[in-house]
Amino acid sequence: MKDKIKIGLLGLGTVGAGVCKVLTENAHEISQKVGRAVEVKTVLVRDVNKKRNIVGDFVITDKIETILDDPEIDIVIELMGGIEPSRTYMLRALQSGKNVVTANKDVVAEHGKEMFEAAESADVDFMFEASVGGGIPIITPLKQCLTANKITEVIGIVNGTTNYMLTKMTKEGMDYNTVLAEAQAKGYAESDPTADVGGLDAARKAAILSSIAFNTRVTLDKVYVEGITKITPQDVEYATELGYVIKLLAIAKDSPENGVDVRVHPAFVPKAHPLAAVNDVFNAIFVKGNAIGEAMFYGRGAGALPTASAVVADVVDVSRDIVNQTFGRIRCTCFEDKKFCPVENTVSSYYVRLLVEDQPGVLGSIACAFGDQGVSLNSVIQTRRVANQAEIVVITHCVTEANLRKATHVLNELPVVTEIRNVIRVEKSQEVN
Amino acid sequence: MKDKIKIGLLGLGTVGAGVCKVLTENAHEISQKVGRAVEVKTVLVRDVNKKRNIVGDFVITDKIETILDDPEIDIVIELMGGIEPSRTYMLRALQSGKNVVTANKDVVAEHGKEMFEAAESADVDFMFEASVGGGIPIITPLKQCLTANKITEVIGIVNGTTNYMLTKMTKEGMDYNTVLAEAQAKGYAESDPTADVGGLDAARKAAILSSIAFNTRVTLDKVYVEGITKITPQDVEYATELGYVIKLLAIAKDSPENGVDVRVHPAFVPKAHPLAAVNDVFNAIFVKGNAIGEAMFYGRGAGALPTASAVVADVVDVSRDIVNQTFGRIRCTCFEDKKFCPVENTVSSYYVRLLVEDQPGVLGSIACAFGDQGVSLNSVIQTRRVANQAEIVVITHCVTEANLRKATHVLNELPVVTEIRNVIRVEKSQEVN
Repeated sequence: MKDKIKIGLLGLGTVGAGVCKVLTENAHEISQKVGRAVEVKTVLVRDVNKKRNIVGDFVITDKIETILDDPEIDIVIELMGGIEPSRTYMLRALQSGKNVVTANKDVVAEHGKEMFEAAESADVDFMFEASVGGGIPIITPLKQCLTANKITEVIGIVNGTTNYMLTKMTKEGMDYNTVLAEAQAKGYAESDPTADVGGLDAARKAAILSSIAFNTRVTLDKVYVEGITKITPQDVEYATELGYVIKLLAIAKDSPENGVDVRVHPAFVPKAHPLAAVNDVFNAIFVKGNAIGEAMFYGRGAGALPTASAVVADVVDVSRDIVNQTFGRIRCTCFEDKKFCPVENTVSSYYVRLLVEDQPGVLGSIACAFGDQGVSLNSVIQTRRVANQAEIVVITHCVTEANLRKATHVLNELPVVTEIRNVIRVEKSQEVN
Repeated sequence: MKDKIKIGLLGLGTVGAGVCKVLTENAHEISQKVGRAVEVKTVLVRDVNKKRNIVGDFVITDKIETILDDPEIDIVIELMGGIEPSRTYMLRALQSGKNVVTANKDVVAEHGKEMFEAAESADVDFMFEASVGGGIPIITPLKQCLTANKITEVIGIVNGTTNYMLTKMTKEGMDYNTVLAEAQAKGYAESDPTADVGGLDAARKAAILSSIAFNTRVTLDKVYVEGITKITPQDVEYATELGYVIKLLAIAKDSPENGVDVRVHPAFVPKAHPLAAVNDVFNAIFVKGNAIGEAMFYGRGAGALPTASAVVADVVDVSRDIVNQTFGRIRCTCFEDKKFCPVENTVSSYYVRLLVEDQPGVLGSIACAFGDQGVSLNSVIQTRRVANQAEIVVITHCVTEANLRKATHVLNELPVVTEIRNVIRVEKSQEVN
């Protein structure tokens, strides 16, 4: 067996420790598959004096140069998270001719182009399977296994925190604040949960997935984002009654007529859809292509070992390239310049829940207000008395966001309408099995 | 752009036509990803005079030499099916220095070693993503994306025909013969359905999956096989009442204590398990590994275009190797020589349905007969009167197959037992989300 393949690891938090564990425990299998041993040589940490309980025979340093200037190091794994200094360190690693593997969705979503270009200039690989869906293989399946398809749709549950919260709200009728507190207590939500519950985390993953799926660069500003903070137990209850579950979806669609449409928002998902059964912290990504039809990839979207599984898979892939003296087999695939669909032009069915005066004729005036703005109703499902007022829930047919907004604006002005309590999209386009 | 990559296609049935369609319709995207155009040059058919309605600018021949002797052809796609002459043609193609892509599960399961060795000797690639799970990416995910894991379990619904039949039996209460006739009428089952309903098709796929998952060669004779022909509407009904669905599963487990255990048989699957929701002709493969935890891959397990999606993905992968002047990056991974678990030693929970005399003490003597053979009962769920007899259903705790067989042998001899109507395994090992 030839020389070992040596790794410089940036960051030794839970995922970093997971990577060390996986590389150590599965060292025999990995070396058999690569044709050489693969091991961590040097780890960059903030505080070299901190006590750590991590297995591995490596050097600990707080100087990035120890890794970047070491000609023995073939691969740099970045697991520090956040934009800086991760971005700079990765760029410098690529420029030093080192292959880079990262789990950093922020950098990939916002500076992916820069990374790919640096990798290509330096004849090395840049890989990021762990940036979306944790352990779930999705980047390689999209880039490689489904590469023969024109992909028209990617719908994912890509944020474990919010999926855990929505599952609890559905199964146990908990309200948003209670479930958030519980998720924080369990370590499933951070003390500042904004990026998760506000949808930004999912939006970054949506940008990455859609860029690959549609062969065009989707930057974060092209992703429409709504979080789950406005979902109430009443919405969850109506969804259940109507045969749906509420999920925070990352939705990406591409069609020649409308262009590329990428959104993150809560949505009603029919119970028979494969995504409806994805509960707790699990993630899943549902893909439609013109050859494969539908496919779904399901698994643990976070956690030290699942994420390490994806990171080490990339390390093995890069190592195979090193052994075979090749690189950049699978490059950036954003070779198309596609038009985007403004959110006003997107088409969806909507659930609208209104609080209205409980008086004769109110239903008629509401239906007319929708109709006047081109919003036809599929059904007016429920009316319930709440004090001396009534709650009305309508599900619309597929309409443009612009028309729906006009309709809710008009409804807000109607004297009989006390309040529009929520508007949630209904995801209908998928076939179900 | 450099020279085109040229393909020789063996077989122009539905999948062959699908491959031509996918390569033509998605030619732009494929050429962008590969860096060269990829096209079919020559197609081998049985009857060159048969009228065909297939798009593509290629030569049709009935002589294999036209393809094998053509130095312009880089890749041979084999879609004839069956062992011979497919096996010989593929071997000759490999020996001629051509890369081979196939959807042929029979040859991969029974002659995989020979193929890999021929590919390695000739410095070319041998790929077979489409041999299992149709369009679902599973071979590449196992070989590449989950490669950092010690995989302990693979459970798949890998035969669309039987899954369609069992779904119909569950949802519509149809009996086996009626649903088989319907499946044949719809083209989901062949006129001779033996390989599907008897489990052989699934067994071949189980052999392929487990060989890759466990890094050891699992030949077909190591796979224990039972089909679905004995499943009755009564079994389906009991399963539903007890919170299960019946699925034909390909189960592969590996543990240091028991060794490798590969089986195909019907099984009770808990309704909360992700596999329980995989209906109709859909397939899914559930994988457990020591890093990723659980993952599942879901999609269309058959059909011209889904299968073409997998075939063309392999073609693109091989083409990238050609462009990068590499090959054999991912070789045969059967580098371990593991022990196998004889079926008598496998451990499972069992559903046993018995017809017994409806008389006092019968339950006691049955429970004793089980207990005497080391089979403890989880529950005696149902007793129903059928004429002057009663039907008893028991679910056992996890016991060895050997003990269960001893128990059913003893039960068969008991005067109060008229008949053991069915014995079906209960798949319990998985965590559910």
